[in-house]
Amino acid sequence: MTPNPIQDESRKSYELPRTLAWSGGVDGTLALLDQTLLPHRVKNRVCSTAEDVWNAIRELCVRGAPAIGVAAAYGLCLGTRPFRRQSRDDFLAKTREICAYLESSRPTAVNLAWALGRVSKAAQSHPSASVGEIWDAMLAEAHELAREDMETCRRIGEVGAHLIPEDGGVLTHCNAGALATVAYGTALSLMYIAREQGRKFRVYADETRPLLQGARLTAFELSAAGIDVTVLCDGAAASLMSSGKVQLVVVGADRIASNGDTANKIGTLGLALSAKYHDIPFYVAAPRSTFDLSLPDGGAIPIEERPEAEVRGGFGVDVVAPGVRCFNPAFDVTPVELITGIVTEVVLLEPVTAKNIKQIFERGA
Amino acid sequence: MTPNPIQDESRKSYELPRTLAWSGGVDGTLALLDQTLLPHRVKNRVCSTAEDVWNAIRELCVRGAPAIGVAAAYGLCLGTRPFRRQSRDDFLAKTREICAYLESSRPTAVNLAWALGRVSKAAQSHPSASVGEIWDAMLAEAHELAREDMETCRRIGEVGAHLIPEDGGVLTHCNAGALATVAYGTALSLMYIAREQGRKFRVYADETRPLLQGARLTAFELSAAGIDVTVLCDGAAASLMSSGKVQLVVVGADRIASNGDTANKIGTLGLALSAKYHDIPFYVAAPRSTFDLSLPDGGAIPIEERPEAEVRGGFGVDVVAPGVRCFNPAFDVTPVELITGIVTEVVLLEPVTAKNIKQIFERGA
Repeated sequence: MTPNPIQDESRKSYELPRTLAWSGGVDGTLALLDQTLLPHRVKNRVCSTAEDVWNAIRELCVRGAPAIGVAAAYGLCLGTRPFRRQSRDDFLAKTREICAYLESSRPTAVNLAWALGRVSKAAQSHPSASVGEIWDAMLAEAHELAREDMETCRRIGEVGAHLIPEDGGVLTHCNAGALATVAYGTALSLMYIAREQGRKFRVYADETRPLLQGARLTAFELSAAGIDVTVLCDGAAASLMSSGKVQLVVVGADRIASNGDTANKIGTLGLALSAKYHDIPFYVAAPRSTFDLSLPDGGAIPIEERPEAEVRGGFGVDVVAPGVRCFNPAFDVTPVELITGIVTEVVLLEPVTAKNIKQIFERGA
Repeated sequence: MTPNPIQDESRKSYELPRTLAWSGGVDGTLALLDQTLLPHRVKNRVCSTAEDVWNAIRELCVRGAPAIGVAAAYGLCLGTRPFRRQSRDDFLAKTREICAYLESSRPTAVNLAWALGRVSKAAQSHPSASVGEIWDAMLAEAHELAREDMETCRRIGEVGAHLIPEDGGVLTHCNAGALATVAYGTALSLMYIAREQGRKFRVYADETRPLLQGARLTAFELSAAGIDVTVLCDGAAASLMSSGKVQLVVVGADRIASNGDTANKIGTLGLALSAKYHDIPFYVAAPRSTFDLSLPDGGAIPIEERPEAEVRGGFGVDVVAPGVRCFNPAFDVTPVELITGIVTEVVLLEPVTAKNIKQIFERGA
C-alpha cells in the first residue's frame, strides 16, 4: 500500500495545522481540522463513517473544492469498510450507493465527483482481486489523491508565482489556501511560492460573507506564514482597487465549464467586474480536476443555496427583522470574458479559450 | 416660534419609531432613536448637550446624511443654550466653536456642514435681536430643517417613484430610508411613494457590512411598511443582477461633487459596476443639500475611515486572527459615468452633467 503522504512534515514551515490526515492503516480514521472554529480554536473532528464525512462537508468543517474531494475519497473508504467481507457485487453496489450519497453533500464543486470517481475506478480496476484487496486499493487511491493534491497545488504555485507583483498588492476572496486543499492551496499557493522566491508583496483578503472564510481562514494561514495580510469587507474591494493598491486579483474555483466560465465563492463575480473596470488582471487558480468539460458554459453549473440562517444570524445574533427572507447562494459564476487567465498545475491558460482548456487534458500531466 | 413639525403623526402608517424628535420648547431635549440597537430594541437616546449629539452621530446611533444634518442642527441649539445670557459676540463665537466641533463628528456627509450653516446663518441674520431671541431663531431654524427634510424626502419619492418597476425587483444598499432622514428617506422614499400609488415590486437589501444597516434597518423599515424585502450579503448582489431579478438599483448619497461623482456607503461602487455590466439602471436619490459644488469631482471628497473593530468583531466575536490589520473605509466614490440619474426633490437629473447639477441651484425650490 502507498505510504500515507500527508503524515510527512511538508507544511511545517507554515506552522499550520493539517487540513486533513488519515491516521492508522486499514482500521484508521480521518481527522479533519474543524474550520468552523478557526481562527480561535484548533480542533480536529475525527470521522470514522461516511456519514461523519458527509456531515463534516455539509457543515463546512472541511471546505474548499480540492479538500472536499480528498475528504470524500477517504469518506468512501470509511463507508465501504464494513462491507469488506461481503460479495464482490454487493460491495460494488454499496460503493456506488455511498458515492452518490457523498456526492450529495455539496453540489457545486466538481472535484468532489471527480475524486469519488477516481476511488470507484480503483475499485473496479482490480477484477481478480478479493474484496479486501479491492478496498485496500481504494484506500491507496485516496492516499494517492491526497499526495497528488499537495503536489498539484505546489505546481499551481510554481506555474503562477511570477504573476505576484513585487512590492504590489494582491487581492483574494474566500479561502483558496492550504486550508482549502491538502497543502499550499490554489490561489494562495502562488503567494507561498512567490514568498519562497523572496518576493515581497501585500495581500488583501475579502472577509467573504456570510461565513467569513477570508477573515477567519485566509488571514489566519497567511499571517501564520509571515505574509503581510489585511482584511476588508467584501464591499470595500472596488474602492481598494480604485485607490491603486491592487495590482493583481487571484481566486480559486469550485467548477470551471468547458468555455472557462468559473463558479467560485459568492462575491467573485463582483470582484471580477471591479478588476475589469480598473484594468487589474484577474486570475483563477485551480487544478485540472476543477474543470467540468461536460458543461458548455457557466449557466449549466448547479449553484448551491445555503440556509438563510448563515446570513440572518451567522454570528449568534439575529440581525434581520423577523419575517424578512434572506437569499444565500454559496457561489456565483464569472464569465470567461472577465478572466485574464487560469493558472493550472500544468500551464497558465492566457487567454482562456475552450481550445486551450481542452488541450490541458490531452497532453500528459 | 415655528411649531415642532416632527411631533405630527405623518409616519403613523409606516408603524416606524421616529428617527429623531425634539421634545419640549426652549428647555427641550433631542430624542434620537438608537439605531445601533435595531431591529431588536426600540429605544431612544436622549441628548441634552452638543457632546451628547456628537457622540450619538459618531457612534451611529443616528446616521444617514440628512438625519445627521438635522440632528447636528439641534445639537448646535443644545450646545449654545447655556450661553443665552452671554454677550452677543461671545454667543456667536461659541456658536462658531460648537459648529466646528459638531462638524468634526463625521467627515463625509456634506449635509452636516450644510445644516449647521443654515442654523448659524439664522443666528447671524437677526442683528437687532437679543441673544435669547437669536437662540430662539436658531431652534426655529432647526425645526424648519426637520420640516423641510420630511417634505424634501417626500418630494424625492414623488419625483422618482415612476422609476420603480411594476412587478420588478429593486436593489438598494445600506439604509437610505426613513431611518436615515426625518421621514420617508431618499432612495426608499421612491418605494414608499410607489407603494402609495399601488405599485407592486420586490426589494433586495444588501446587508451592508460592516454595520449591517441594510439587514438591520432597511429590512426593518420596509417590512414594517408591508413592502416585500429580501436581504442578501453584499457579495451576492452581482449574482442577483446576473439572474435577471433586478430591474433597478437605487441608493442614497453622502456627498455629491459638482460633476456628479457620488460618495455613498462602502460597497456602492461595486454595485454600480455590476449594474453597468448587467445593463441595469443605477440611480442615486438625494436632496440638494447633499451636493458640494465646491468640489470639482469625487477625488476631493474626504472619506472617513472607521475603527478596525467594526470589521474584526462587528458581531461580538473576534473573527480575524490576532495581529492581522483590517481596512475599514466607510464610503466609496462612484464616478458619474456609472450613474444613470440622480433623483432630487426638484427634478430627476438624467443624464447627470455638471451643467444640469448647477441648474438645480439656480431655479427656485
